[in-house]
Amino acid sequence: MSKRLDINNSGGTYPVLIEHGLRFRIEEEIRRVCPDATTIFLLADEKAAAHHLDDVMSSFSAAPHVILIPQGESSKSFDELERVLTELLEHGADRKSVVAALGGGVTGDLAGFAAAVLLRGVSFVQIPTTLLAHDSSVGGKTGINHQAGKNLIGSFYAPNAVLYDPAMLATLPEREWRSGFAEVIKHSLISRAGLLEWLYAHVQDPSDLQEDALEELLYRSIQVKADIVQEDEFEAGVRAYLNFGHTLGHAVEAEAGYGGWTHGEAVALGMLAAMHLSRMKLEADVPLEKVEQLLKSHGFQTSLPRSFNHEKLLKRMMHDKKTEGGNLRFVLLKELGEPELVPVDPEMVERAMKEVTADD
Amino acid sequence: MSKRLDINNSGGTYPVLIEHGLRFRIEEEIRRVCPDATTIFLLADEKAAAHHLDDVMSSFSAAPHVILIPQGESSKSFDELERVLTELLEHGADRKSVVAALGGGVTGDLAGFAAAVLLRGVSFVQIPTTLLAHDSSVGGKTGINHQAGKNLIGSFYAPNAVLYDPAMLATLPEREWRSGFAEVIKHSLISRAGLLEWLYAHVQDPSDLQEDALEELLYRSIQVKADIVQEDEFEAGVRAYLNFGHTLGHAVEAEAGYGGWTHGEAVALGMLAAMHLSRMKLEADVPLEKVEQLLKSHGFQTSLPRSFNHEKLLKRMMHDKKTEGGNLRFVLLKELGEPELVPVDPEMVERAMKEVTADD
Ligand SMILES: NC(=O)c1ccc[n+]([C@@H]2O[C@H](COP(=O)([O-])OP(=O)(O)OC[C@H]3O[C@@H](n4cnc5c(N)ncnc54)[C@H](O)[C@@H]3O)[C@@H](O)[C@H]2O)c1
Ligand SMILES: NC(=O)c1ccc[n+]([C@@H]2O[C@H](COP(=O)([O-])OP(=O)(O)OC[C@H]3O[C@@H](n4cnc5c(N)ncnc54)[C@H](O)[C@@H]3O)[C@@H](O)[C@H]2O)c1
Repeated sequence: MSKRLDINNSGGTYPVLIEHGLRFRIEEEIRRVCPDATTIFLLADEKAAAHHLDDVMSSFSAAPHVILIPQGESSKSFDELERVLTELLEHGADRKSVVAALGGGVTGDLAGFAAAVLLRGVSFVQIPTTLLAHDSSVGGKTGINHQAGKNLIGSFYAPNAVLYDPAMLATLPEREWRSGFAEVIKHSLISRAGLLEWLYAHVQDPSDLQEDALEELLYRSIQVKADIVQEDEFEAGVRAYLNFGHTLGHAVEAEAGYGGWTHGEAVALGMLAAMHLSRMKLEADVPLEKVEQLLKSHGFQTSLPRSFNHEKLLKRMMHDKKTEGGNLRFVLLKELGEPELVPVDPEMVERAMKEVTADD
Repeated sequence: MSKRLDINNSGGTYPVLIEHGLRFRIEEEIRRVCPDATTIFLLADEKAAAHHLDDVMSSFSAAPHVILIPQGESSKSFDELERVLTELLEHGADRKSVVAALGGGVTGDLAGFAAAVLLRGVSFVQIPTTLLAHDSSVGGKTGINHQAGKNLIGSFYAPNAVLYDPAMLATLPEREWRSGFAEVIKHSLISRAGLLEWLYAHVQDPSDLQEDALEELLYRSIQVKADIVQEDEFEAGVRAYLNFGHTLGHAVEAEAGYGGWTHGEAVALGMLAAMHLSRMKLEADVPLEKVEQLLKSHGFQTSLPRSFNHEKLLKRMMHDKKTEGGNLRFVLLKELGEPELVPVDPEMVERAMKEVTADD
């Protein structure tokens, strides 16, 4: 099977192709969307490259220039951006060059930003190699980090195409798999498209995700994100719903420190807390237990260790950029698929944290 | 008197206000176009600031945070961009902040790019203080230089407003005045709007440019640029006409080396050569002698010193980014106001260089 979505944005439409074996057709697909391409540059995450670069390179009649991106969040930096731009320019980049990103969200965010600012914008193609990148490769957010915070410098810059070969996910470490799966769950909760039911029926266990089911999962989860970013390209409204689970998630991630909790693990816990809050605050009927079970069967921790200090977590949430004017604002669910931005008083947030804290 | 233009682009419309004394109303005008502005940041060219910052600051009820930009082209650098972004973030920039640029093209290009990438784009206001900035502040090109060449990194990012107080031009050194006047002449040659005739009738001499005449000149010259960028926002077509005079101009500027010829002086000579070429190649009827006289009366050098090596200039032109596929392409005039992109063989370019070379 293979799947295709077309995503509209202010600059036009771009396709998302999802297909096992697509990595052997990369050049052809790039030239289809960029027919007057001169040089193609491949910015490749070093780990993704170790597993898959040979396959991708074999799709090219003439080898593209490859720039390896060191793995890890620290590559989303000013220094790395400058290094990449210099290498692009020194190897003859012109206005019809194409920058393609082979990797996860880190490589995609960095390469997309480089493409956005090189000669005021060159063509850009995403070749995602992580599950999380089903989220990050769609919607046109690109950028780097700053010492003052994550993703503070960047552009809205849509790709010309997203070329997703799910076969490359086979080499992903389990933790990175979970990181992406948390966003799938998130998409299943904030939309009415039936993704949660589908997950229940087909993906009780990671091993259920073989060829067709994996393509279907990516397609359905990307569809949720696509619907939202098409409605709100520049994050003036409903795009905020994509932060479901992220308010407490960010706090846990930061409080745990580097290497402690991954983003996805922390967001999973954040989503559980947000569902508790939805019940408390909105008396909402939300499938909390179902989600908890789904998370467990995919290897997530579903309770917060007692070692976390709730007061410190609260303080971090208060400083979160989603807290405008001193109010704590959460994305909650009125019901499954019905997110809403709701001011919540800190005392209630503490109660929700208690709900998700381990008993012993 | 005062003048206003409204410029359309893909993101909306922005006003260009031209008015003596406008510097005393900056905050009011910024808040008019950015009604929900939180903090306003003023990025100010150090020399422009020395003369005019106090006046501009007096327009604010609460003083905006000021970041001084060292004068000169070297401020359009990666390092300076990073410094500016860090200072903006450390002083509490958020998505509703406004970055205002007080200065010439250097400050405008740098500040505009910083605004474009800060939090994926914040509001941006141009407060031009040079004559050249009537050109650079309109059209949405922003960016910095790279060791590989000028303006190679940047964004198309339109301002929310251009607030032009011509009174601030009074302190501009003569050379900088000429630099901007060359672009006025260029605009007068590539459009049918009657600007050349108007200059002839009203501006035989720089001293003719008192209040109303200066506002009128800025208005008319910006109108030419506005018409072109509105037709071709992302430089896919007619925007190339703005390079009239720039092919030889860039070569002369580069060949003369730092501090030799200013951009405007070199472009003026390039325009004369391009008019010679228009006669040779297109048998065009162009007002070469009139332009030469106008340039002279404004203090321009109208012939190339014999010390310039024509072969070296030709080589530089061949490497110019406007030379696609090895062909030398010039913007020529079919007649006054009728530019066209024309491939020209190198031998004819040499003849044109001879035409503009000094006799003794
Ligand atoms: N732009 C957006 O809209 C958006 C949305 C969500 C997240 N993000 C960003 O995405 C980033 C996280 O993305 P990510 O989780 O993909 O991280 P990542 O890019 O760091 O990849 C995770 C790890 O997996 C490795 N890897 C990648 N592909 C592999 C493969 N096929 N086999 C084995 N190892 C592989 C990488 O080397 C890395 O160590 C963050 O920086 C986040 O800010 C962006
Ligand atoms: N973005 C565009 O579309 C565009 C178009 C043309 C040129 N440019 C860029 O513009 C730059 C040139 O602009 P510029 O000529 O304004 O240069 P500039 O900004 O360097 O200003 C010229 C000099 O005048 C000084 N100055 C500025 N205002 C003054 C004032 N009121 N009184 C006294 N001194 C003052 C500055 O300190 C500087 O020394 C170049 O970097 C060029 O690439 C951009």
